[in-house]
Amino acid sequence: MYVCPSATPADTSGLQALAGAGKIKPDTLVALVGKTEGTGAHDDWGRVWADAALREWTASFLGVPVEEVAKHVIFVLSGGCPGVITPHIAAVTREWVEAPERQADDKRLVVGRAGSDAIAPEEVGRMGMIRKVAAATHEAMKDAGLTDPKDVHLVMVKVPGLTTASIKDAESRGKTVVSHDLTFGPEGAGVYANDGAALGVAMALGEVPESKLSDEVVRRNWDLFSEVALRSAGLRFNDGLPDEQDLDRLVHVFAKSVIPGSDQVRGRRITLLDDVHAYEIGKALGGMLVASVTGRTTNYVSGGERNSHQGPPGGNIVAAVVRAE
Amino acid sequence: MYVCPSATPADTSGLQALAGAGKIKPDTLVALVGKTEGTGAHDDWGRVWADAALREWTASFLGVPVEEVAKHVIFVLSGGCPGVITPHIAAVTREWVEAPERQADDKRLVVGRAGSDAIAPEEVGRMGMIRKVAAATHEAMKDAGLTDPKDVHLVMVKVPGLTTASIKDAESRGKTVVSHDLTFGPEGAGVYANDGAALGVAMALGEVPESKLSDEVVRRNWDLFSEVALRSAGLRFNDGLPDEQDLDRLVHVFAKSVIPGSDQVRGRRITLLDDVHAYEIGKALGGMLVASVTGRTTNYVSGGERNSHQGPPGGNIVAAVVRAE
Amino acid sequence: MYVCPSATPADTSGLQALAGAGKIKPDTLVALVGKTEGTGAHDDWGRVWADAALREWTASFLGVPVEEVAKHVIFVLSGGCPGVITPHIAAVTREWVEAPERQADDKRLVVGRAGSDAIAPEEVGRMGMIRKVAAATHEAMKDAGLTDPKDVHLVMVKVPGLTTASIKDAESRGKTVVSHDLTFGPEGAGVYANDGAALGVAMALGEVPESKLSDEVVRRNWDLFSEVALRSAGLRFNDGLPDEQDLDRLVHVFAKSVIPGSDQVRGRRITLLDDVHAYEIGKALGGMLVASVTGRTTNYVSGGERNSHQGPPGGNIVAAVVRAE
Amino acid sequence: MYVCPSATPADTSGLQALAGAGKIKPDTLVALVGKTEGTGAHDDWGRVWADAALREWTASFLGVPVEEVAKHVIFVLSGGCPGVITPHIAAVTREWVEAPERQADDKRLVVGRAGSDAIAPEEVGRMGMIRKVAAATHEAMKDAGLTDPKDVHLVMVKVPGLTTASIKDAESRGKTVVSHDLTFGPEGAGVYANDGAALGVAMALGEVPESKLSDEVVRRNWDLFSEVALRSAGLRFNDGLPDEQDLDRLVHVFAKSVIPGSDQVRGRRITLLDDVHAYEIGKALGGMLVASVTGRTTNYVSGGERNSHQGPPGGNIVAAVVRAE
Repeated sequence: MYVCPSATPADTSGLQALAGAGKIKPDTLVALVGKTEGTGAHDDWGRVWADAALREWTASFLGVPVEEVAKHVIFVLSGGCPGVITPHIAAVTREWVEAPERQADDKRLVVGRAGSDAIAPEEVGRMGMIRKVAAATHEAMKDAGLTDPKDVHLVMVKVPGLTTASIKDAESRGKTVVSHDLTFGPEGAGVYANDGAALGVAMALGEVPESKLSDEVVRRNWDLFSEVALRSAGLRFNDGLPDEQDLDRLVHVFAKSVIPGSDQVRGRRITLLDDVHAYEIGKALGGMLVASVTGRTTNYVSGGERNSHQGPPGGNIVAAVVRAE
Repeated sequence: MYVCPSATPADTSGLQALAGAGKIKPDTLVALVGKTEGTGAHDDWGRVWADAALREWTASFLGVPVEEVAKHVIFVLSGGCPGVITPHIAAVTREWVEAPERQADDKRLVVGRAGSDAIAPEEVGRMGMIRKVAAATHEAMKDAGLTDPKDVHLVMVKVPGLTTASIKDAESRGKTVVSHDLTFGPEGAGVYANDGAALGVAMALGEVPESKLSDEVVRRNWDLFSEVALRSAGLRFNDGLPDEQDLDRLVHVFAKSVIPGSDQVRGRRITLLDDVHAYEIGKALGGMLVASVTGRTTNYVSGGERNSHQGPPGGNIVAAVVRAE
Repeated sequence: MYVCPSATPADTSGLQALAGAGKIKPDTLVALVGKTEGTGAHDDWGRVWADAALREWTASFLGVPVEEVAKHVIFVLSGGCPGVITPHIAAVTREWVEAPERQADDKRLVVGRAGSDAIAPEEVGRMGMIRKVAAATHEAMKDAGLTDPKDVHLVMVKVPGLTTASIKDAESRGKTVVSHDLTFGPEGAGVYANDGAALGVAMALGEVPESKLSDEVVRRNWDLFSEVALRSAGLRFNDGLPDEQDLDRLVHVFAKSVIPGSDQVRGRRITLLDDVHAYEIGKALGGMLVASVTGRTTNYVSGGERNSHQGPPGGNIVAAVVRAE
Repeated sequence: MYVCPSATPADTSGLQALAGAGKIKPDTLVALVGKTEGTGAHDDWGRVWADAALREWTASFLGVPVEEVAKHVIFVLSGGCPGVITPHIAAVTREWVEAPERQADDKRLVVGRAGSDAIAPEEVGRMGMIRKVAAATHEAMKDAGLTDPKDVHLVMVKVPGLTTASIKDAESRGKTVVSHDLTFGPEGAGVYANDGAALGVAMALGEVPESKLSDEVVRRNWDLFSEVALRSAGLRFNDGLPDEQDLDRLVHVFAKSVIPGSDQVRGRRITLLDDVHAYEIGKALGGMLVASVTGRTTNYVSGGERNSHQGPPGGNIVAAVVRAE
C-alpha cells in the first residue's frame, strides 16, 4: 500500500510517480482508496471530479477503456477533509510472493475484492442491499484466500446513495425508498446506505445472524453491528499513545468517526446533535484524534454520521496497516 | 473556582445552587467566565441571551441594579461549543485567607481584575486599544497584588467587536475602522479586536516592547505575541497524557485553538484555510484535543481565528487551574 | 393588527408603545405573531430568547404569572429572517364592535383561537397530532363565531417539534417517533410536525376527508393539502403587481415559501434540492418575492421545507390582511 | 449567443450539439460564459472542474492544445446557483455579416475581447490591476470596432483572486497584498479583485477619472462606480413586468446581485449583513428577482458581495441580450 498526498482533487502525479518507479503495475493495482477535499456533502464536486480523473488515469495506465476500469480496480473515495485531514490517495497492490514456511499464527496482510450484484434504489438501506453486500463480502474473502471470518480486519464497501433521479425512477415503478433526504443526516439516504453495508458485512462475518435482520432494524436497533479493532495490528501503546518507533512502521490508518446518538459524553451534555454542521464537525473530530495519536495528518478518516452499525454504540472502528518488524 | 454545566444559555441553576451552598457570596464573586452553546458567530444570540440572563441573576444576587453589575463582576462569555465542548459557567471567587508562613516559591492562585477606559470603534484592533488594554492589565496585576509579570499566567480580556452601528458612528465622525468585516474571518473585526487585546497584554507584561507596536503590525507581524504555558501548573505528563490522579486535581482548563496561517501541518497540506466553516471547525479541533487529554468535555476552549498574537506562530495557549496537592 | 419591527430578539419597545397609546389592552390582546432574527435552525436561540422576553413582557402587561400567559395570548414565532425579511412582531387584538346592519357578503376580519390537547412526542407528524389539530381548529372557528369553513382564510398552528429529550422519553415508554432527524430537512421532525398540523387543518375544514388520512400519507401523498389564497382579500393586481394605492391598505402578509419536491422549475433544472443551505435559501426566496410585490420588507414569511401539505404541489400559500376601503 | 443548460459541471453535450448543428464553429466561437453549480465559495470544485472540462472540449473543438485555448476563447465561469438559477453555459460567437445601409441609431450587438497584461498578486484590488483592466477594456472596444464608450453596455472581466500560494509568493518578494481573507466577504480578496476590475472599466469608459482613483478608494469610496442599464435594450415594461412577447425575444440576462452596505431597506432593518450565509443568499435573492421578472431560471446572476463599485450605492447592474424585432 502506497499513500500519495493530493495537491488538487484531480492530482494524479503521485500515482504517476509510483507507476514510473515500478511500485504499482497494471497487473498489481487492485484498489485506489482516498480522501478528497471539498465539503463532503452529498453533492461535493471535488469528490466527483477526483473520481473522474482517477478513472481516466487508471484507464490509461491499464490500457483499457474508462468504462472497463471498474472491473480491474476498486475506487473508494470519501469526500471532505475538514480540519487536519490531508487529501490523499492510497494505492493498494497485490502480488503473489514465495513465502518461507511459516507458523499458523504468523499472519500477513492480504486483500480481496468483489463487486456485488446491482443494487436498486428501493433496496438501498434495506434487506436487499444487506444480502447483496453479504454475498459480495463472501466473494471478497474467497478472492483473498480467507476462510475464517476472524482473519477479516477491515471491509470497505463502496455504497450507492440515492439521488433525485434514482428516487424518481423507483417511485415511477411503484416502489418506495428508505428516505427522501439525500444527505448524511440522521434520516438521510447516505447513512441508511452506509448502515445497510455495515449490516451486510456483519451478516457475512457472522457478527449478526440473518434471522435478526430486517428492514426495520436498520438505524433503529443499535445492538446489531460490525466491528474491527486497532490494537490487534501489533502496535504497542504506552499510556494511550503509540511508541515513536511503532509509528515509523505505520503505513496507513482507516478510521470512522461516528457521532454518538446521545447528547452526553461521560455524563456531560454536548450540543453536537443539534449542530447544523454536525456531519462535518464529527468528521473533523475523528481526524484530530487520529492525527494526535499518529502524529501525522495523512489518515483516512470518514464519518460524521449520527450513530452507525459500523461499530458498537458510542464506539468507532479503526484499522491500521503496519509493516512487520 | 466552581464550574457549572449549563442546560440552556439562560440556565442559572448551577450558580443558584452554589449560592445556596454558600460557596459563592455577593462579596466574593469576581467573575463569571463561560462557554455558551450556539453558532459562535458574531451574531450568536445564545451568547447574548446568556449574557442578559447572567447579568439579571447577578444583579439580584448582589442586590444591585443590572446596570451596575459590571462594576462588581466581570463577565466573559465565549460563544460556540462545536464538537465536544460542554456549555458551562465558571464562577471565580476571591477572599482573603490567613496563610501560614510560606517559602517564596510556594505560590498559590490569585485573581485580579480591572476595567479599561472606554474603547472607541476607531480604536478597535489598533494602538488605541492596545494601550488601553495594557493599562488595564497593569491595574489588574495591582488588584491581584502582583508585581512580577512572570507571575501572570492567564489574562482574559473581554473585547469589543465592531457592529454595523458602531462603524456608522465612527465614520460619521470622520474616522476609519480597522475592518468592515464583522466576523472572525482572517480580516474580520473580531480577530483584530482579539489581537489588539493580546498585544496590549504582551505590552503590559513586557513580552513585546511598545516601540515595536503600531497599527501596522496587528495581524501582520506574527513574531509579536503573548503566551502562557500549561505544564507550569504542576501537572505531570507521562508520554503525552497527564496522570489519572493529576486529572482529579484539575479544576478547569482555558485554551485557545487558533488555526495556523499555513496550509501545512508537519509537511502535509491541509485544507482548513479554504474551508468556509474553518472558524467553527478550528474551535472544535481544540475542544477535541483538550477533551482527549483531560478526559472531560467541560473545558473553556475558544478560538477558530486564523493566526493570532495570542501565542507563537503555529502554537496555542492553554492554562490550567489545578488544586494544590 | 399592529406590526412592530424588532431591533433585537428581546425588543418589546414596540409593544410597549402600542400599550402606552392604548392600541393594545390586556383584555384585547389575543396573539403575538412574528419573525425573529437568527439562523432559523431548530436550535436558533434568537427565537427562544424572543419567546422568553415576549412572555415576560406579556405577563407583566396582563398582570398574570408567566406560566399563565399562554392561557390568554397565543405566541407564534417563526425563526430566521434570511435576505430581505425584517424581524417583527404583529400584535393581534380583538374586541366587540357595534356594527351597522350589513349585507351577508360584506364580511370583515375576525379571529379565533384555541389550544389543542397536549401532543405526545410519538404523535408528532402522525394521526394523533392530526386529530388534535383538527379538533382545535374547530374550537378556534367556534371562538371566532364562524361556522362555514369557506370563511376561514388562514389558520396558524404553533407546532411541537421533537427534541433529544422528548425522543428519549417516547422510546423509554416503548413508543417510536416519526423521525430522529431534529431539523427541517426532508425527513426532519420539524417538517413532519408542520405537515401534521396542515393535514389537521385540512381535515377540520373539509379539504381532506379523514378517511384518506393515515400515518403513511404524511409527507408521501402530496395530493392531500390545505390552501388559502391572497387575491380573495380584495387587492387588485395589474399585470402581476398590486396597485400602489392598494399597498397603502395592506396591513400584513403571511406567506409560506416551500421548496418544490422536483429539481425542475418550468422545465429547467435547479440545484436547490441538493443545496445544504436549501432551508434558509428557500425561505429567503419567498421573502424576496413578497418584498418585490409589496414593496416592503416587513412580511411574515416562513418556510424552506421541501414539499408541504400546506399547499398544492409546486404551490405556496399566502394570506394578506387588508384594511377595508 | 446560445444558452445551454448544464446537467453536471462537466457537461459539454449542449456545446457539442451546437457544434454538430453548425451554430458554433471553431472560427466563430469567442467566449463561453456560464454559471456552475456548487457552493460558489472560493474553493468551489464544481467551478474548477467545469473550467477544466470546458477547456478540454474547446481544445478538441478548435484543434489546439489545451494551453492555447485561452488565446482563442474567453472563459468566464461564475460559481454557485443558489435558489432558482439554472446551471448553464452561454456560447458567444462572432462573424462578419453584410449589413444593409443603416441609420446611425439602428445599432446591433457586437462583441470584443482582450486579455490584460498579467496581474501580480500584489496588484489585485489595487491601482496596478485597475490600470491593466482599463487598458484591456480599451483593447476590447477596439476589437469590437467601438469608439464611443456610450456604446458599451456590458464589460465582463475574468478576475484573479488571491490564494494561499500567491500570497506567499508576494510576501516572499517583500510585497503586501490587499487582504489575507480569500473569500468574498466584505474584506475578502475576491471582492477587492472584482472591485478593482469594476474601477478599471469605469476608468476606461470615462465614468470615473483616473485622478480620483487610488489604492485607498477601493471598497471605501462608493461614489465611484461603473454602471449599465437594462431598459435601454429595448424591452417594454408595463407596471414593472416585461410583456410576454418581449420575453420571447429575450436571449439572456446578465445581472449582478450585490448586498447593500446598509442594514436598512426602505427604512426597515434587515439582518443580511450579519448573516454568515450572506454571500450565498445575496446571490439567491438576485436570482429570484430576475426569475420572477423573466419567467425563466436560466439567467446569469452573480453577486453576493457586500457593496460594490459595479453599480451605484444600493443599486445593481443588469444587462439583457434581446433579439431585434
